Amino acid sequence: MADPIAELTSLLSRLPGIGERTAARLAYHVLQAPPEYAQALAQGLSTIHARVRRCERCKNYTTDSVCRICADVARDSSVLCVVARPQDLAALERGGGFRGRYYVLHALLSPLDGVGPEALDLPPLLARVKNESLSEVIIATPLSVEGEATALYLAQELRPLGVKCTRIASGLPHGGELEYTDQVTLARALDGRREL
Amino acid sequence: MADPIAELTSLLSRLPGIGERTAARLAYHVLQAPPEYAQALAQGLSTIHARVRRCERCKNYTTDSVCRICADVARDSSVLCVVARPQDLAALERGGGFRGRYYVLHALLSPLDGVGPEALDLPPLLARVKNESLSEVIIATPLSVEGEATALYLAQELRPLGVKCTRIASGLPHGGELEYTDQVTLARALDGRREL
Repeated sequence: MADPIAELTSLLSRLPGIGERTAARLAYHVLQAPPEYAQALAQGLSTIHARVRRCERCKNYTTDSVCRICADVARDSSVLCVVARPQDLAALERGGGFRGRYYVLHALLSPLDGVGPEALDLPPLLARVKNESLSEVIIATPLSVEGEATALYLAQELRPLGVKCTRIASGLPHGGELEYTDQVTLARALDGRREL
Repeated sequence: MADPIAELTSLLSRLPGIGERTAARLAYHVLQAPPEYAQALAQGLSTIHARVRRCERCKNYTTDSVCRICADVARDSSVLCVVARPQDLAALERGGGFRGRYYVLHALLSPLDGVGPEALDLPPLLARVKNESLSEVIIATPLSVEGEATALYLAQELRPLGVKCTRIASGLPHGGELEYTDQVTLARALDGRREL
């Protein structure tokens, strides 16, 4: 008979950042905690895909047909922020500095992995830009190679529609030391300098 | 309606060493991985308590009534190693240096937390020492305050039965530098010195 602890350890070790030893520690913890905890966690995991769907408007995760942000009439409908993933949207919301609307791509261009423009599902985004009187689309994909390629492609598709496309700034992070900053970031920080 | 991602994050953050941010990352990962993974993990978690029981002889985790080690006739039945937890037994087995039998306490004395000798469930251990012709009991509880208190208590209970009680060594770990070793460990390493 298979070893249930080894099986659970193997499943847990497939989580990001969880190695074999940590996974074993978690498996033993679950076994030594009250059984109610294992049941609650199992329930949360087994229902997560069914309970979470994508917002019809922005494709953010939601339990309703339209997400909380799209349903909020107090948000600024003239600015749209395009992000790669729901967790990026959540990070921006934690910051609280953006009061416009979002669009979640759920993908990034990655020619080396064979991920082309069709993966981005742009038609709903293009339709929004055409039909809503947007003053600006902020492209907030990550500053990685894939994120930059996606930003350039998006700008190229959106600009002909007459909307202003902007990109989030690249530079040193808050508290960043020049001494420990990589060359690309330093060059971008210089390029993106602003008048004081 | 409650947020399923926040609920799953909250459950995952109760795992040891998993903070709120890591838990959120894991929850998003599960949601973005194929649903089969979430189902398999849920299944592993929901069945772990029912599938894993304690060996009738040594109380190690097992799926049968008697564990693999207790059932192994090739093991040395004259030496018994007492450990606090099944994961401690697993660590000793990985080492491979011990070929005797085990007994798992599933507890340690901790007077400050109100955990007294009754939590150790000693009668089965005392019965084994009485009925089996043991030459030695190795007490391999951890070198923590609780582990040391438990070792002293066990030795006091076992010695009247005429069995030799030993304690695993305390000293510098493999590769240990004297300069970075705490005072208690240094003192113990000196105390436990052996003739070359």
